[in-house]
Amino acid sequence: MASPTEQPGPTPSRMAFDTPLALKSGASMPAYELAVETYGQLDATHSNAVLVCHALNASHHVAGIYDGDPKTRGWWDNMVGPGKPVDTNRFFVIGVNNLGSCFGSTGPMSLDPATGRPWGSRFPVVTVEDWVDAQARVLDRLGIARLAAVMGGSLGGMQALSWAIRHPARVAHCVAIATAPNLSAQNIAFNEVARRAIITDPEFHGGDYYAHGVVPRQGLSVARMIGHITYLSDDAMARKFGRSLRNGGLSYGYDVEFQIESYLRYQGEKFSGYFDANTYLLLTRALDYFDPAAEHGGDLTAALAPARARFLLASFTTDWRFSPERSRELVRALLANRREVSYAEIDSPHGHDAFLMDEPHYHDMVRAYFDRIARDLRLEDAPRGAAHGRPNLREVPPAGTAPSAREST
Amino acid sequence: MASPTEQPGPTPSRMAFDTPLALKSGASMPAYELAVETYGQLDATHSNAVLVCHALNASHHVAGIYDGDPKTRGWWDNMVGPGKPVDTNRFFVIGVNNLGSCFGSTGPMSLDPATGRPWGSRFPVVTVEDWVDAQARVLDRLGIARLAAVMGGSLGGMQALSWAIRHPARVAHCVAIATAPNLSAQNIAFNEVARRAIITDPEFHGGDYYAHGVVPRQGLSVARMIGHITYLSDDAMARKFGRSLRNGGLSYGYDVEFQIESYLRYQGEKFSGYFDANTYLLLTRALDYFDPAAEHGGDLTAALAPARARFLLASFTTDWRFSPERSRELVRALLANRREVSYAEIDSPHGHDAFLMDEPHYHDMVRAYFDRIARDLRLEDAPRGAAHGRPNLREVPPAGTAPSAREST
Repeated sequence: MASPTEQPGPTPSRMAFDTPLALKSGASMPAYELAVETYGQLDATHSNAVLVCHALNASHHVAGIYDGDPKTRGWWDNMVGPGKPVDTNRFFVIGVNNLGSCFGSTGPMSLDPATGRPWGSRFPVVTVEDWVDAQARVLDRLGIARLAAVMGGSLGGMQALSWAIRHPARVAHCVAIATAPNLSAQNIAFNEVARRAIITDPEFHGGDYYAHGVVPRQGLSVARMIGHITYLSDDAMARKFGRSLRNGGLSYGYDVEFQIESYLRYQGEKFSGYFDANTYLLLTRALDYFDPAAEHGGDLTAALAPARARFLLASFTTDWRFSPERSRELVRALLANRREVSYAEIDSPHGHDAFLMDEPHYHDMVRAYFDRIARDLRLEDAPRGAAHGRPNLREVPPAGTAPSAREST
Repeated sequence: MASPTEQPGPTPSRMAFDTPLALKSGASMPAYELAVETYGQLDATHSNAVLVCHALNASHHVAGIYDGDPKTRGWWDNMVGPGKPVDTNRFFVIGVNNLGSCFGSTGPMSLDPATGRPWGSRFPVVTVEDWVDAQARVLDRLGIARLAAVMGGSLGGMQALSWAIRHPARVAHCVAIATAPNLSAQNIAFNEVARRAIITDPEFHGGDYYAHGVVPRQGLSVARMIGHITYLSDDAMARKFGRSLRNGGLSYGYDVEFQIESYLRYQGEKFSGYFDANTYLLLTRALDYFDPAAEHGGDLTAALAPARARFLLASFTTDWRFSPERSRELVRALLANRREVSYAEIDSPHGHDAFLMDEPHYHDMVRAYFDRIARDLRLEDAPRGAAHGRPNLREVPPAGTAPSAREST
């Protein structure tokens, strides 16, 4: 359903970078491209930019729709747009598809220039820190020295935190939602099972399934089903599905009996039809590796010491994947560094997925926070300066390449 | 390590039944055999019998070791034995491998008399109620009209509850630990993902992998990994593994990096080496289907109305698979029926697995409860009457057929 304030269709673009990127692993990424999308207008002083970082299954396509097709709605369209909590009448919002993802940026499906074949599982393992450094180059290209805010949820929240640590002078505000200072053993365990399902699918072919013209659909599907269970709360599942039967009665077999089975199979199959398996491995590994405190003997306060931003953190009461306690760890470490932190623990039945939903209290809070940023920056509704163009960009095919708002955790 | 009060090696036996068993699905199980093991002596009045029901990955081999080999220790050896909470100096304890399991009883690996080929996935879907009815025939064979107690944890607890409902005159006490009146949508979801991993493994061959000389090891392994995550609490995983690295440093790849990954892979591989995949499907389906309230419009109190037993229920604070709230539902429904219920919510960091561990408070409570049963029955340490033999039983191979105490959830 088109919103009454439907924003004009965004134009996805691709930025090419020729300078190799030094990765945390010690490897180096040679020339690469990133898919980028922007919303609103950059103001004359280049002070109103907001970088929105994506999580596992999302992309540069944050908001709006392509070609008038509501099915192509961006993954955070309820949050970003004209008159929305992150108001693109005031802010210039940037979405970047991360290096290694499969929605237009260079990733495992791309050709390795050294071999002329797809990278496959040989694509360098990239980390949250590498993404942040790659995003910094996008900002350089756009002429943005300092962000009004960097923002993200889940894995996107980790990027926002990393921005505040790695580039403190470039971040005025850091908005990190439903995130954590690192993954728990249980989180890593779920990722590992998902990866095993993919890697042991015979159609994975050691990551070179492209050459075989196949896709490890079964493994990807199982991986996605596991993910879905962890995105929803026990309560939300009980409310939405309970023990409802698919066909009213029991058939006593291994076909779908319960609604929840039908839902999960559908989600798994749909996902396996558009998501790249190597990218799934790569993104879950980036989640596992993120742990800024590790380089400080586990001291999160020391890890966050370089940060100069002001912070908004939020968590959701029924999120058991990134529980409120993990956000509180961040809040405590930031306060120990005398940083200014706003923190909200939002009562929601929707588990981790809540960060993508438009719970009124949550959106009101984000709106109020961005209103304050706008006041601090003395932004007006229609930015005055000439918009910075999108230099040196090639088009990427829009339709079908990025997930819609309903499937973006 | 052998216990100082090591009990004499139990003798597993097999009971053959020629009368078909009517199943809840409407199907009928023709002639079948059940593996049975007993401990202690049945007293003269046949009043001291305790039936111990097993969960997913366990068997009739409840206690003791075979041939002096500690690796063959029964799955609840810390609970059942001479001088233990369920004291076999007083009680005659019976373990039955359930129909459809893979440790000696008729199951998917057995030959279907109608075709001469293994049943495979065509083995009739059996339910908790079917198991209880099959166990009742074992008691008939042993000459036991009434149980001093029926006892089980998890899926075993569901059987104990079902006994109290289906055969109220035959159960004096029902001990149901870490169980639930039915599975939640989230529980079913985890089972469904595990089943999909097995069924979509190409070596599953529609359940006829026996004929191909292969086993769907990868699928079984993934299924077991998912199970393990849900048996442990988030806290227990954090304490046991945290983010510890396998080799001290990061290698930036998809091989094992974290200890938790190594542990899960090991558990998955070990399990896939001895557990039958069709049995895994069957047992998880029995878990899904159990829902005594369903036949009473969702009214658990009505479902439990026929019960006449006295009850001991227990749950563990960090068990998120069968949470304390689910046990409390049972307690409330039993009290509404004016049944006598003892209930303990035991503080444990070990999640669902706690029911298999010898937490002192937990074992003390079970011991006290069985002491009371013994007092009520005026049982003495050495039962006087002649032991009922094990009639009509053939030997089953002991070593390697049943899981040991460390892997029995």
